Amino acid sequence: MRGTVLYGPRDVRFEDRETPKIEQPTDAVIRMAATCVCGSDLWPYRGLNPIKAPQPMGHEYCGFVEEVGSAVKSVKPGQFVVGSFATSDNTCPNCRYGYQSSCVQREFMTRAQAPVLRVPLADGTLVPTRDGNPPADLVPSLLTTSDVLGTGWFAADAANVKPGSTAVIVGDGAVGLLGVLSAKQMGAERIIAMSRHEPRQKLAREFGATDIVTERGDDGVQRILDMTHGIGADSALECVGTQESMMQAIRSTRRGGHVSFVGVPHGVEFKGEELFYTHVHLHGGPAPVRRYLPNLIDLVLTGTINPGKVFDLMLPLDEVAEGYKAMDERRAIKALLQP
Amino acid sequence: MRGTVLYGPRDVRFEDRETPKIEQPTDAVIRMAATCVCGSDLWPYRGLNPIKAPQPMGHEYCGFVEEVGSAVKSVKPGQFVVGSFATSDNTCPNCRYGYQSSCVQREFMTRAQAPVLRVPLADGTLVPTRDGNPPADLVPSLLTTSDVLGTGWFAADAANVKPGSTAVIVGDGAVGLLGVLSAKQMGAERIIAMSRHEPRQKLAREFGATDIVTERGDDGVQRILDMTHGIGADSALECVGTQESMMQAIRSTRRGGHVSFVGVPHGVEFKGEELFYTHVHLHGGPAPVRRYLPNLIDLVLTGTINPGKVFDLMLPLDEVAEGYKAMDERRAIKALLQP
Repeated sequence: MRGTVLYGPRDVRFEDRETPKIEQPTDAVIRMAATCVCGSDLWPYRGLNPIKAPQPMGHEYCGFVEEVGSAVKSVKPGQFVVGSFATSDNTCPNCRYGYQSSCVQREFMTRAQAPVLRVPLADGTLVPTRDGNPPADLVPSLLTTSDVLGTGWFAADAANVKPGSTAVIVGDGAVGLLGVLSAKQMGAERIIAMSRHEPRQKLAREFGATDIVTERGDDGVQRILDMTHGIGADSALECVGTQESMMQAIRSTRRGGHVSFVGVPHGVEFKGEELFYTHVHLHGGPAPVRRYLPNLIDLVLTGTINPGKVFDLMLPLDEVAEGYKAMDERRAIKALLQP
Repeated sequence: MRGTVLYGPRDVRFEDRETPKIEQPTDAVIRMAATCVCGSDLWPYRGLNPIKAPQPMGHEYCGFVEEVGSAVKSVKPGQFVVGSFATSDNTCPNCRYGYQSSCVQREFMTRAQAPVLRVPLADGTLVPTRDGNPPADLVPSLLTTSDVLGTGWFAADAANVKPGSTAVIVGDGAVGLLGVLSAKQMGAERIIAMSRHEPRQKLAREFGATDIVTERGDDGVQRILDMTHGIGADSALECVGTQESMMQAIRSTRRGGHVSFVGVPHGVEFKGEELFYTHVHLHGGPAPVRRYLPNLIDLVLTGTINPGKVFDLMLPLDEVAEGYKAMDERRAIKALLQP
C-alpha cells in the first residue's frame, strides 16, 4: 500500500509502505473510510518540531474492521469503528478515572494517513457504531470524533462550561471551532470566538458563537473584559498552544474561572506568581477522546451536531501533500482525505 | 499604641505607631484578642522579598469590635469577630463567585501585629461569632481561621479532596499541617504528609495524617508513587511556594488529579508541555478565607476541630521579634502573640 510520510519541512510524500497487519493479539486492522490532516501535523511540517527520520503521519481515523487479533472481543470484522488518536486499554486506573489518553499502555497513533491502519489495544481504543454502517454523508462528522471534536469537547469540559456560562475560545482552527460547538452543546449562553478570518468567523457563528473578537493579545483581553463588566469570562478554551494565546486565555478569565489548554504547548511557560493572583483553574492535556467517543458518535448519528463542516477541503488520499499545503497557508481549515 | 514594624532582614521592632481609627464609613476598629506570625512574614524577614521602607506587619487577627463607621451594618461594638487577611466587600462578582480574596475592592491587611487594628470593608470582611464572646481557650483556634486554617482549607478544597481520596501534603508549616486537618475533615482516606521534622510529624498525625514521607524531590515523588500503585495521589496540596515543592506536588499526583498551591510562589515556573502531559488540574491563589469563615468558626466553636494546636509558642505581643526568630530558626511552628 501507499501511505503518507513526512521527510522534512514541507516535504510530504505519499509512497510505498508495508501494509499493516496484526502484530499483537490485541490489535485490529481497519480499512480507512476517511482520514485527515490535523493542525498538530503542521508543527513538524513547518519544521517547528524536529524530524529525525522519515515519519509516517496521521492519527485521525474511522473505517471498517478488516481483521482482529485473537484476544480482541469487543469489535469484529465488518464493523464501522472510530478510535482515539491515543490508544488505551480502558481498564488501567488512569483510564478508569477517564484519562484514557494517559493510559499506562498508551501509544500515540502515527500512521493513519493511509488506506489501512493497525490499531493496538483494539478493545479499549475502538468504538463501533451501534446500528451497523453509518450513511456515507456522516463519515466526515464521525471522523472528527477521533480527535478534533473530541479535543474541542475536552476543551469545553476541562474549562467547566455549564448552562449559562460565558466562554471564550482562543484559536479559530478546527479544534477551536469545535470548541465553540461543544460549548454550545454544554449550554453556554455567551460564546465569544476570537478570530480574524472571515470564513472561520462564519463557521464559528454557525456552531453557536454569539460574539466574535478580532483583536489579539492585550487588546483582545481588554475587549473580553469590556464585554464582561470588567470581570472576565467564566471559561476560556485555549486551542492554539503558544505563549500569546495561553496568556490571552488566562487574562480573559474571571477570578475563580476555568482555563483549559488542549494544543501541545510550544515554548509556553507559566509564571507561578501570575497564575496565583489570577485565581484561575487550569486543566489541559491530550484530550481523553475515548471517554467522550460513545456520546459524540451518538450526537453525530442522531444529527444533533454536524462537526464535519470543519472539512472545507476534500482530497483523494494520494493528494495529501496538497492538504498540508492548503492548511499551512490557511486556505483550508481542515483537509479530509479519501482513500 | 505600639505595633510591629519590619525595618530590614531580621530587624523586627515593636514601636510607637499611630493608634488606628475609623477613616471610612465602612471601617471597623477592633481590639485584638490575639494575633500571630505567618509563614509568609518570613519571606521579607529573610530578605527574600525586598523591603523598601519600614513595613508594619501582621494580617491574622481576631478580637472585639471597638467602633464602627457610619455605614457598617453587620457588626457592632462589643462583638467578637474574625476577619480574613484580605478585605472584601462580599458583594462584587468575584466575591459572589466565592473568590473574596480577589474582591474588586480587596486590600491585603498589613498592620495586625498590634493591639488595635482598622479593618476596611467591615461588613464584607468580618464575621462575628454567633453566640456572644467565645471562651478564652478557643481564641487560638479562632485566630487560625483568619488565615492559616482558611488557607489550609482552601488547599484541600482546591485540590478537590473528597471522601475516600488520597491526598499528599507538601510542606509541614502551619498551613500544611492544617491542610492535613482539612483533608481529614473532607473525608480523605489516606493523608500523606511530607515532613522531616519530628514534632511536625507528630502534629500531622494528630491532625489525621495516615503516612509520613521524609524524602524530598524525586525521591519523595518516587515514595508517593510506590504508595499509590505507581499511579499517584488524587490530590496534592502545595503549601510552600518553591519550585521544588511545586514539582513535587505535581509529580506526586495521578493523571487527572488535582494540585492546589496556596503559598505565594517564589520564582516558580511551570513548563507548559510538562503540565500538559501530567494531565493535572491546577488551582491556587490567595485563599478566599471569607468564603469558609462561617463554617470554620462553627467547627471551632463546636469543638469539632482544634487547629490552635499549631501554636507551639505563645508570647506577649511586645516580644514579637522573638516569634519571628523562633519561626525562622524552625524552633517554633507558629507563634501566637498576646496583646
